[in-house]
Amino acid sequence: MELWYSEEQTANVRLSLKVKEQLFSGESEFQRVDVFDTYEYGRLMTLDGLVMVTEKDEFIYHDMIVHIPMAVNPSIKKALIIGGGDGGTARELLRYKGIDHVDMVEIDKMVCDVAKEFFPTISNELNNPKLSLYYEDGVAYMKGKSNLYDLIIIDSTDPVGPGEGLFTSEFYTDCFNALTENGILVNQNESPVYEEFAKEAVRANEKLKKIFPIVEVYQAQIPTYPSGYWLFGFASKALHPTKDFKPQEWNRLNLTTRYYNTELHLGAFALPTYVKEYIENGAI
Amino acid sequence: MELWYSEEQTANVRLSLKVKEQLFSGESEFQRVDVFDTYEYGRLMTLDGLVMVTEKDEFIYHDMIVHIPMAVNPSIKKALIIGGGDGGTARELLRYKGIDHVDMVEIDKMVCDVAKEFFPTISNELNNPKLSLYYEDGVAYMKGKSNLYDLIIIDSTDPVGPGEGLFTSEFYTDCFNALTENGILVNQNESPVYEEFAKEAVRANEKLKKIFPIVEVYQAQIPTYPSGYWLFGFASKALHPTKDFKPQEWNRLNLTTRYYNTELHLGAFALPTYVKEYIENGAI
Repeated sequence: MELWYSEEQTANVRLSLKVKEQLFSGESEFQRVDVFDTYEYGRLMTLDGLVMVTEKDEFIYHDMIVHIPMAVNPSIKKALIIGGGDGGTARELLRYKGIDHVDMVEIDKMVCDVAKEFFPTISNELNNPKLSLYYEDGVAYMKGKSNLYDLIIIDSTDPVGPGEGLFTSEFYTDCFNALTENGILVNQNESPVYEEFAKEAVRANEKLKKIFPIVEVYQAQIPTYPSGYWLFGFASKALHPTKDFKPQEWNRLNLTTRYYNTELHLGAFALPTYVKEYIENGAI
Repeated sequence: MELWYSEEQTANVRLSLKVKEQLFSGESEFQRVDVFDTYEYGRLMTLDGLVMVTEKDEFIYHDMIVHIPMAVNPSIKKALIIGGGDGGTARELLRYKGIDHVDMVEIDKMVCDVAKEFFPTISNELNNPKLSLYYEDGVAYMKGKSNLYDLIIIDSTDPVGPGEGLFTSEFYTDCFNALTENGILVNQNESPVYEEFAKEAVRANEKLKKIFPIVEVYQAQIPTYPSGYWLFGFASKALHPTKDFKPQEWNRLNLTTRYYNTELHLGAFALPTYVKEYIENGAI
């Protein structure tokens, strides 16, 4: 017998992973949550059937969503994570001694519970005393917040389902207001390869540009995400991700990382021509 | 009815593309050759069932295997392609007015014939008068060649089957001898994500380092290749790929490219920490 998990990355492309066994399946108020033990990528959590995180390649996503902004402003003290239920983003943030407090707003408690049970190496800081975890809607949470956070990380699902509201101008404006004067917002920005989600990401980027003076896009190779090629958005009130980047300061922190390094930081912002064009023109 | 093509990227990972129709299937002396018309990636050529080239993402591979060395030495006049039967590498090389002549040694005539019939936008320079096309074994062809080429591009299949001999020390030594004093060798170097091929690529890299004074690895995101993350090797007798890189000179050539650009050139050599470690340590 063979057991295979398949993700329909588009209607015409599927990635399939051979599975040892299914470890969990549950239906929360918001989505279906499954856990599989795969041969190639270790344990895999899916949300509504889509890859959220795997043990083997989660370090790439979490390195890139955390260390890029932290190396631009290593003095960040107060951070907010929207989503991020598996705990990987919190884990990486809490490695910085300078971080005083992290608020995390995850809409779906089941994601955190499942991460705690099945992904101990990813969720292991979810009980850190510096972390306050709120099981709330991120969109509602952001309303009326002002001058509170040095960094907001939007670690969301795709712009369909529970994550949809996290790709709107209204939400980005609330984030802008919630940030301190050097505040940085980072979000996951989909793949540029498949048109459906690429369009949403371009639209999100255009919305950010109307609100933040500095908006740039950066990239990483994440094999289990659609196309293996993933983009992130970097928006800031004052700090530019490469011009204000502080490699010496970051390297002095002596953090061991498996994906991020300070040369790669600059390379991550050097996008292929077709990606630059699609961001500028709003279409692929 | 649905028709799907699946590549077993490893025993435990498959990429599947939905197919409109199969356009060709043939068995040459060396391998099985198939052509499919896919919904997402346009036409696809497979060799022994593995993705060789698709219309949608071929520009990435061909940009990176050609423009990286050409931007390090835009004075290259004589080039050799080993493999490259679809014609994409020749097409990109022949865009340079400074190139006097390209020799191309493809072991399998069927690959070129199929490219000419089904992939006109890729193979359209295979009849260029500056190109000499030899249907021969690349390993045998290289024997005894001396001081002939400014650039050798090894545009091969994986290190199993017909491509195997193109990953040996003997072959690399023959290439070294065939290069002029500033000569550059570029080869496709597999993905670092899946262990089986990654090991072969690391070994190939170690072999090159014993022969060439300068050996570096660079990267690109190629969605239809295993993991979507692909490496290339750059070996040279004298020129370093980033220190001797000539961005102004290359930009003055005014070549339009959809993937390559001179900022990305530097970024392509900024590897993730796990890849640097696996190249240095010879293991993942």
